[in-house]
Amino acid sequence: MRTKVAIIGAGPAGLLLGQLLHRYGIDNVILERQTGEYVLGRIRAGLLEEGTVALLDEVGAGERAHREGLVHHGVELAFSGARHRIDMYGATGKTVMIYGQTEVTLDLMNARKAAGLTTIYQAADVKPLDFDTDRPRVSYVKDGVSHEIECDFIAGCDGFHGVSRASVKPSAIQTFERIYPFGWLGILSETPPVSPELIYSNHARGFALCTMRSTRRSRYYVQCPLDDHIDQWPDERFWDELKRRIDQKAADELVTGPSIEKSIAPLRSFVAEPMRFGRMFLAGDAAHIVPPTGAKGLNLAASDVHYLSQALREYYDEKSSAGIDGYSAKALSRVWKAVRFSWWMTSMLHKFPDEGEFGARIQLAELDYVVNSKAASASLSENYVGLPF
Amino acid sequence: MRTKVAIIGAGPAGLLLGQLLHRYGIDNVILERQTGEYVLGRIRAGLLEEGTVALLDEVGAGERAHREGLVHHGVELAFSGARHRIDMYGATGKTVMIYGQTEVTLDLMNARKAAGLTTIYQAADVKPLDFDTDRPRVSYVKDGVSHEIECDFIAGCDGFHGVSRASVKPSAIQTFERIYPFGWLGILSETPPVSPELIYSNHARGFALCTMRSTRRSRYYVQCPLDDHIDQWPDERFWDELKRRIDQKAADELVTGPSIEKSIAPLRSFVAEPMRFGRMFLAGDAAHIVPPTGAKGLNLAASDVHYLSQALREYYDEKSSAGIDGYSAKALSRVWKAVRFSWWMTSMLHKFPDEGEFGARIQLAELDYVVNSKAASASLSENYVGLPF
Repeated sequence: MRTKVAIIGAGPAGLLLGQLLHRYGIDNVILERQTGEYVLGRIRAGLLEEGTVALLDEVGAGERAHREGLVHHGVELAFSGARHRIDMYGATGKTVMIYGQTEVTLDLMNARKAAGLTTIYQAADVKPLDFDTDRPRVSYVKDGVSHEIECDFIAGCDGFHGVSRASVKPSAIQTFERIYPFGWLGILSETPPVSPELIYSNHARGFALCTMRSTRRSRYYVQCPLDDHIDQWPDERFWDELKRRIDQKAADELVTGPSIEKSIAPLRSFVAEPMRFGRMFLAGDAAHIVPPTGAKGLNLAASDVHYLSQALREYYDEKSSAGIDGYSAKALSRVWKAVRFSWWMTSMLHKFPDEGEFGARIQLAELDYVVNSKAASASLSENYVGLPF
Repeated sequence: MRTKVAIIGAGPAGLLLGQLLHRYGIDNVILERQTGEYVLGRIRAGLLEEGTVALLDEVGAGERAHREGLVHHGVELAFSGARHRIDMYGATGKTVMIYGQTEVTLDLMNARKAAGLTTIYQAADVKPLDFDTDRPRVSYVKDGVSHEIECDFIAGCDGFHGVSRASVKPSAIQTFERIYPFGWLGILSETPPVSPELIYSNHARGFALCTMRSTRRSRYYVQCPLDDHIDQWPDERFWDELKRRIDQKAADELVTGPSIEKSIAPLRSFVAEPMRFGRMFLAGDAAHIVPPTGAKGLNLAASDVHYLSQALREYYDEKSSAGIDGYSAKALSRVWKAVRFSWWMTSMLHKFPDEGEFGARIQLAELDYVVNSKAASASLSENYVGLPF
């Protein structure tokens, strides 16, 4: 088989890239190790920047998001027993949209299906090959049979644990990493959200986040030790702990119910540089991970894919390699800003035992400053709604 | 002897408080352990917020500052080989003034002398007494003779190592502290400043700061290990190191010369709470220390003293203790904001070996964001010029 761009990974990054390239007349094939159902089953982020929604619109996959997504104009910060609203829309003229990553993936899958494009699911042993030459290939095994795709370019959209970045020789790549000393215990429940906007809470017992998937489905998180197991967290304990970490009004109004999903996730910041290796490009989690505090993971994948699709369009339409040559620097500039923001939000909101009482008070001073300063609120807002592409 | 307010410490905090109280008709006596010459010999901060200058004006001690001080409208941040100017005046409509703490102290001393107020220098064994009763006293020894001052209130303006805070029983006070793992090696030289505005430089070799006392006298700093001794830093080594840590243009234009002062200072953040203990108040370094990166130490002392003088004025003029009851909370609210800002500037600009490569890149991402975002520049600016009283 031959295609212009072989995309590894059928998550939202790979699917969005595929649709953008298709729109620009660049044929592509997606290889995915798992089944489509498996990919859809992954519970992930649920907050889209306007720029991300615009990309969905561009590929004709935004219609349901506009219909079902919840548009938020602000966000709430809770600390010292009170809640403070940040008016993001007032500061930036922009909003964010609550719309689950699962839904984004489904809409993009359907768009891809409608366009009749090739996605090879359950492709085993995928290997990006010869990407340091002019004739890159991707090999894989399907139903026990070995295959190979010849291509002009490989796009590694296969996540943090994917084969793409792992195929680069270590001397060609530099990585930056921070592992945070705690995890997020999250539950999904068929209950109405406690508040129409997100509540990020800094509390002496640890961070808590009240978010949602829809007006009837809530998502709540509490910071927990990394070595906790979900068996230690029956629903009742979770709800009790959450109530202790939010303001009294929220605790009183919280509607609890059985969890329909419960998991503990570690928090990590990670960046690999560069994001281009000859004729292979990395995009999204394959190149960088952010802690979920800033809701930036999916949105960063979208901006990477935007830059990459524009670079490839330039390559094919204008016979210029300026775009692909500049891709890594351009993407990384925005990546580091989002990595910084996610690190900052994480640092300000979580309990860090090693930072001591001084660190805890600095967090409160920072929150107090952020909610009372127009400039600081605007700074948080412009990052939260997403810096321009 | 009897006075309304016994002030311990004749540094700028104590002297300014004395002049403000005098202006409000509240008699006061200052006790100082050292000689006036010794106090004047201490090389300290040199950057005044407009609010601080306004307080000097209020007590008639601002005339020389306006004549000799250098008004700065911006500040420069250097990193990754380039310099970026933050237009503080554009963002806030405010400026800062370069005018040495030594000069402030001298002007306040002269104002005090002109007003005929009592300052007892070389007062040994000063002790604030009975401040938890309605009849506080301060005892001291002068020329071998014991004395006692009866007063309504005691103001502890005697710095971090002073007797005032040390006289409070430990159970009544809570302290917050961060010791930074490096020091500042500073020199003063009779050379023109390398640039008309300050340059704060983040460099892989460590932080550097180019500042000044006047158009003919420069002050430069480089981050150094805490256990370094100035004997290890002959002038030539200092200038070489400084040049390596600033941008090429600045290095080329730097005028070097013999140092007329050279010292290594540790960096510390410290806050004691509360700032009132019965009839004793703490103000300035007696209650809190900030690392010098944000140039906030002297300015915080000035705002403390402003709040305290207003509170005491209210007490005597309106027979209301609301002001003195609210002093600690009011002062601490501004203190923590300045402590946060100083911690943030320090964290962003210095080399922290324990933070690793990820931390170093986050600093560059933050600097890149700050100089390119209007909101973030405004946030830095409003703190640098001083948050409102």
